[in-house]
Amino acid sequence: MSGNTFGNLFKITTWGESHGPGVGVVIDGCPAGIEISEKEIQKELDRRKPGQSKITTPRKEADSVEILSGVFEGKTTGTPISLMVKNKDQMSNHYGKTKDKYRPSHADYVYDVKYGFRDHRGGGRASARETIGRVAAGAIAKKILKKHKVEIIAYVTKIHALSADINPAKVKAADVEKNAVRCPDQKMAKEMIKAIEKVRDEGDSVGGVVECVIKGTPAGIGSPVFNKLEARLAQGVMSLPATKGFEIGSGFAGTDLKGSEHNDAIKSAGKKVTTLTNNAGGIVGGISNGENILFRVAFKPTATIFKKQKTVDKKLKNTDIQMMGRHDPCVVPRAIPIVEAMAALVLVDELLIQKTVR
Amino acid sequence: MSGNTFGNLFKITTWGESHGPGVGVVIDGCPAGIEISEKEIQKELDRRKPGQSKITTPRKEADSVEILSGVFEGKTTGTPISLMVKNKDQMSNHYGKTKDKYRPSHADYVYDVKYGFRDHRGGGRASARETIGRVAAGAIAKKILKKHKVEIIAYVTKIHALSADINPAKVKAADVEKNAVRCPDQKMAKEMIKAIEKVRDEGDSVGGVVECVIKGTPAGIGSPVFNKLEARLAQGVMSLPATKGFEIGSGFAGTDLKGSEHNDAIKSAGKKVTTLTNNAGGIVGGISNGENILFRVAFKPTATIFKKQKTVDKKLKNTDIQMMGRHDPCVVPRAIPIVEAMAALVLVDELLIQKTVR
Amino acid sequence: MSGNTFGNLFKITTWGESHGPGVGVVIDGCPAGIEISEKEIQKELDRRKPGQSKITTPRKEADSVEILSGVFEGKTTGTPISLMVKNKDQMSNHYGKTKDKYRPSHADYVYDVKYGFRDHRGGGRASARETIGRVAAGAIAKKILKKHKVEIIAYVTKIHALSADINPAKVKAADVEKNAVRCPDQKMAKEMIKAIEKVRDEGDSVGGVVECVIKGTPAGIGSPVFNKLEARLAQGVMSLPATKGFEIGSGFAGTDLKGSEHNDAIKSAGKKVTTLTNNAGGIVGGISNGENILFRVAFKPTATIFKKQKTVDKKLKNTDIQMMGRHDPCVVPRAIPIVEAMAALVLVDELLIQKTVR
Amino acid sequence: MSGNTFGNLFKITTWGESHGPGVGVVIDGCPAGIEISEKEIQKELDRRKPGQSKITTPRKEADSVEILSGVFEGKTTGTPISLMVKNKDQMSNHYGKTKDKYRPSHADYVYDVKYGFRDHRGGGRASARETIGRVAAGAIAKKILKKHKVEIIAYVTKIHALSADINPAKVKAADVEKNAVRCPDQKMAKEMIKAIEKVRDEGDSVGGVVECVIKGTPAGIGSPVFNKLEARLAQGVMSLPATKGFEIGSGFAGTDLKGSEHNDAIKSAGKKVTTLTNNAGGIVGGISNGENILFRVAFKPTATIFKKQKTVDKKLKNTDIQMMGRHDPCVVPRAIPIVEAMAALVLVDELLIQKTVR
Repeated sequence: MSGNTFGNLFKITTWGESHGPGVGVVIDGCPAGIEISEKEIQKELDRRKPGQSKITTPRKEADSVEILSGVFEGKTTGTPISLMVKNKDQMSNHYGKTKDKYRPSHADYVYDVKYGFRDHRGGGRASARETIGRVAAGAIAKKILKKHKVEIIAYVTKIHALSADINPAKVKAADVEKNAVRCPDQKMAKEMIKAIEKVRDEGDSVGGVVECVIKGTPAGIGSPVFNKLEARLAQGVMSLPATKGFEIGSGFAGTDLKGSEHNDAIKSAGKKVTTLTNNAGGIVGGISNGENILFRVAFKPTATIFKKQKTVDKKLKNTDIQMMGRHDPCVVPRAIPIVEAMAALVLVDELLIQKTVR
Repeated sequence: MSGNTFGNLFKITTWGESHGPGVGVVIDGCPAGIEISEKEIQKELDRRKPGQSKITTPRKEADSVEILSGVFEGKTTGTPISLMVKNKDQMSNHYGKTKDKYRPSHADYVYDVKYGFRDHRGGGRASARETIGRVAAGAIAKKILKKHKVEIIAYVTKIHALSADINPAKVKAADVEKNAVRCPDQKMAKEMIKAIEKVRDEGDSVGGVVECVIKGTPAGIGSPVFNKLEARLAQGVMSLPATKGFEIGSGFAGTDLKGSEHNDAIKSAGKKVTTLTNNAGGIVGGISNGENILFRVAFKPTATIFKKQKTVDKKLKNTDIQMMGRHDPCVVPRAIPIVEAMAALVLVDELLIQKTVR
Repeated sequence: MSGNTFGNLFKITTWGESHGPGVGVVIDGCPAGIEISEKEIQKELDRRKPGQSKITTPRKEADSVEILSGVFEGKTTGTPISLMVKNKDQMSNHYGKTKDKYRPSHADYVYDVKYGFRDHRGGGRASARETIGRVAAGAIAKKILKKHKVEIIAYVTKIHALSADINPAKVKAADVEKNAVRCPDQKMAKEMIKAIEKVRDEGDSVGGVVECVIKGTPAGIGSPVFNKLEARLAQGVMSLPATKGFEIGSGFAGTDLKGSEHNDAIKSAGKKVTTLTNNAGGIVGGISNGENILFRVAFKPTATIFKKQKTVDKKLKNTDIQMMGRHDPCVVPRAIPIVEAMAALVLVDELLIQKTVR
Repeated sequence: MSGNTFGNLFKITTWGESHGPGVGVVIDGCPAGIEISEKEIQKELDRRKPGQSKITTPRKEADSVEILSGVFEGKTTGTPISLMVKNKDQMSNHYGKTKDKYRPSHADYVYDVKYGFRDHRGGGRASARETIGRVAAGAIAKKILKKHKVEIIAYVTKIHALSADINPAKVKAADVEKNAVRCPDQKMAKEMIKAIEKVRDEGDSVGGVVECVIKGTPAGIGSPVFNKLEARLAQGVMSLPATKGFEIGSGFAGTDLKGSEHNDAIKSAGKKVTTLTNNAGGIVGGISNGENILFRVAFKPTATIFKKQKTVDKKLKNTDIQMMGRHDPCVVPRAIPIVEAMAALVLVDELLIQKTVR
């Protein structure tokens, strides 16, 4: 309702502000008996944490996760799993000077209008630090998916004007992690990194596109009507900060085709079926058909830049703003584990739901 | 959970199959005292009903709505509103010949896998007739929005290879209804209609893009984190049959810009603020900022075509399929009221939620 | 949220007013493949319908159920099941004279305060006709429970001053149906019927106590903390019109015992355990322990009586009211199938949930 | 779903086990701008904490609450409020000896059946320490109710065989806190304390009855059908450990009356109405009528006693058990703030819902 909970059976509720004591998540509905450790969760958090490479924000956060409940002798108990990450390297004074000015393309103004006031330090609840809870919960979801042999791999396909050419069916998770920008096209990755460094040095920012392939989903997963699998994935990723678009399968380009070109012909494959093409992106009528699930997400350039911008102050008087602080010139590389987490949360939820429909 | 309910406070549950006795919706949480009549709901249903023009399916359905509960002496009572539309012009025999073959890019196979069997007549629950309930409920949502001076206008901007050039800020609802394809660029509309007629005569189909502008939303509407306004709109429209993509504001094209180009500078506007550009699409941090909300949706070409296609039968043996029946060569014109309905449902829900946050 | 939906996975939404076109229910989340017919549902509705015996209201309603969706070739499809019962024998004119007066111990006044106005005919949504949807949905829930060998039997144990002495472990469903008051103690039943007839002839009313035993529930059903099985049963039955109390197992009388007397000693029973006593009422820590689940519900005397009463009119001026119409002198016998329905809805929901916890 | 969340708009999710790092709660949907401090929350926690008097368990827990999010400069921000209490005085070794035996009338066996295994230390999630989160959240709910001039007072009316005679309309919160047993009848309180001490010295336990009066609720609060106010209160309190019964207004005793005796005659009271009696307990048709809301809850004698009992071990072999540890000989005095918290959570939720129905 208030928007801090995601999922139906595997349900997560995140809490915490950028500059408060910490951020966290409560996972309710995780099946009992799943082996999980802080180390496994930490591995995913390390992929999203700040300061991990020269093209991310220099904010230093270990982002060490603590399991506070729901795990006993290394296994989930079926009761709520509470995870917390303490905030350490806050420089709230960075915000003192600009706290009475609304940062363009940030949520400052709308939070003030919505709630009457706001925690102005570092974006408060609107900070991307909120996604820590998603990634931590997603690590557990991924562990469950692994048991079902479902693998989720997200990667960068575009940074600003630079597009990589990648065959989703062949991407390997290890190739994504080989470079700081998380693009499995290693050559293009180098250029992307250079482009990000350049824009960073200009005090500016860029965005890009993330593609995500989900391999191994059995047919029959997903719910009809409002909870179609693509609809839930769309909600999941469009709820991430800085996202501007979502596509499944053929996406917007699919509108260039005729039905006879777009339809995916069906072929027998033993006890299953397969399709000759995959314009559907692995989902038909909201339900997985056993092919690779494939979607793309557009991320806008980071709103925080270090150039002077026009804005208003809290008294709604026109003024200029010059931001300080430590920020990512491009959020896309750190978005990879977050996109994967959202996909994992949706899939685990629908796998559990499927246990109840027959 | 099972995916047939949408909304939190203004909550709708749709029911019904294409070839059963009828389809319907129960609306729970509609505020009391809203004046509404069957006539007003019918007006929206008439915009989506089949057989309304030469470029839609010739299936003849009056789609007459009955109010079964929740309205007394012309006003909503605050109790559940039950609306029903009886199915009339069913030709279930059209499906007899092909009922044991899986239609490509349809949900036949996945429903069988998911539920163990299915109502094979006309797509059953996966039929677009399910959207009748959404449009009927959306008509009531629109009535509430009208009181808040919020107006929603969707229209076609692209059919197959034909793109119109439209200024969303200037589109008028009446201009959209002036032609059968619902494109406010009247000249381009004619060409689009021709293109649809051509593809229909070939037994093929096309898709397109719908744009939707929402005018008059006050700042502060929408919830943070998982229920960001764009995330809920994305879920809403990506839950419609045949959708392949969603964009808010700058969308995928926004990734071509730098932060200094993409950020929307803020300017005082008396007791409110305004922005010099609207790359945000009227939503920042998941919350409306008072500008026009602007999103786009991609619809694939209709899956039902009359050309021979490769597929498998229920025994998973390879075969061919040749469809019969009455179908839209392009669903996009009839999708306009449905997209508007989904947007209205999201907005009314969040307007009600906003009453509870301060 | 608005209170017209019950259940999490097996979820029902009821709609309809006493004097509108009809009442109904949408069941979402019913598993696919359950054999069900209108006849089976009708059988339960006939147990609650008015005019079934001389001690119930003479309102004549066939209460014929129609299945509008979700069932195909005699089996549930996994999609929403819409059930409707049309209202026939309405005598709305009975309410004309008293429509501007608030009936004591009825919801007239509070509905006016809550919603600003109300459908005054026959209690509108507050009418016990709303429970038709519960009983219809409960019939399907019972069918599922039958497959799990779970049996629910409710019966009357007290009418006004008359208490029956019944051993829940030995009650048979058939014995309950042998008399109009639905008390398996056939001798006491006769006296109860006489008592109800007497009070009816006086224009007055009485209440009573219903006991419900659930046999065959496997251990492990129910959720911890807020959704403890007894908590959900309590919500379910306390949401029925006219209920004033709920007890599980030892109930209020359990406070007369010491722990050493109240604790149920555990004994091995092969691959299960059993308890020597059942003060728990079959539920420990919110979860079934395999013993009979046993609860009791208190129903107040019917609020509608034909004696003159003090009240106020809509202008809040003091006045008298003399009711007309057709009403039950005692709702308890007709409450039996309704209590069973609520118990069935809770149990099926928790049985489905249990499929997802390990 | 998994049962760890309560509420619709003002929604709480509790987490934590008796012998893990701590217990906590996340409150989502708390309106922005409510002044709240750790001190105010602590005050309520101190009323439920162990070791507060000679008739409670000697387990020493400060139960110090930390606010981790959602409060900024002393006021709620409208974002999730995360509260944590660390566990300190755990003596998990107390459980080593009996961990392979199922404690009678405890949840040990059913948790093992439900989840496949369990955290055996101190009852794990089934421990009454879980209620800390409820009381902490309830403290904030009470703060909101105070602004609406709604006051909730619970108190003990019965301990084992000892019943107090109390006029709910005249009870003062301060009188409840004057003695360790929380019975406002000071004379009877002394006897109750003696009775508890006696049973404690015997290694046995007793239960009792809590009554709760809610003063100042405006008419019109509560939802119809499944979420009737008494149904939600029933779920709330029956979800507390050790509860066996719930009554509203006249309760089970109301079945002794005829309708003409039970109906509450209505009288004008200026711009409101009042009733001459209050058999309804302040709620009609699920909605408050402006009178005092009055309900009662039965608590069984504490299951943990120090006498030898018959049970089985994990291999389901018959055996004896002799408990150790520190436990309350009577949970009822410490249940008072918990019952008040549940009532406060329900009321605040429904007050928020009421903002959206007109």
